[in-house]
Amino acid sequence: MKPSEAHVPGRCKMANEVIALAGDKWSVQVVMFLGDGKKRFSEIKRSVEGVSQKMLTTTLRGLERDGYVTRTVFPTIPPRVEYELTPLGHELRKPLSDLGAWAIANYSRVAEARAAYDAREGKAEKAA
Amino acid sequence: MKPSEAHVPGRCKMANEVIALAGDKWSVQVVMFLGDGKKRFSEIKRSVEGVSQKMLTTTLRGLERDGYVTRTVFPTIPPRVEYELTPLGHELRKPLSDLGAWAIANYSRVAEARAAYDAREGKAEKAA
Repeated sequence: MKPSEAHVPGRCKMANEVIALAGDKWSVQVVMFLGDGKKRFSEIKRSVEGVSQKMLTTTLRGLERDGYVTRTVFPTIPPRVEYELTPLGHELRKPLSDLGAWAIANYSRVAEARAAYDAREGKAEKAA
Repeated sequence: MKPSEAHVPGRCKMANEVIALAGDKWSVQVVMFLGDGKKRFSEIKRSVEGVSQKMLTTTLRGLERDGYVTRTVFPTIPPRVEYELTPLGHELRKPLSDLGAWAIANYSRVAEARAAYDAREGKAEKAA
């Protein structure tokens, strides 16, 4: 085993930690929306269907902490706060949107599998 | 607006629902591990570091329901249960592994951003 191969479990852990973000549906939506350019909190909130004020604040803080987003406060009254993707955030959009495109293209196959599984497991209500 | 464009929010929902899987670190690890070929429950459990019996059962059931994995029971004593990727599961590996590769390649940038954020927010303990 070469020294570089000794780190395989560590590599998995790294990947998991970073891609945990992809399963956070709010984070994915925010990153994709900010692909257009910088936005205010209220604009992001409107674009991300169903997100609460608190959840969006938490999401944006996580994205800022991980280096995907910058947060700039302008000293107006009330303060204007703008969020923008960093270069790292822009780079993340490619693998995320590939996964999203795959998901959209294959959604009907997943939906069919779920329906078949539920029917097989006897959990499906029979339509009248 | 063409009729097909009226479904953009629906498309986002579709993508979110399917890619929620990618944030489930157990699911990702199982899908990647099964890329090698069919495996028994005990083999999967050994390969997925830190997963509990119960969590792995739930993970495999979710993957089976979504059509990514098949489960075959052989009537031996004790019964042998094998899990195998479906064609859909194999197709999912490509966008997942691209995202994983991105994550591994960029892990140090994320780690640096986190350290800088924590220092800035005054939450970091000073090393002695």
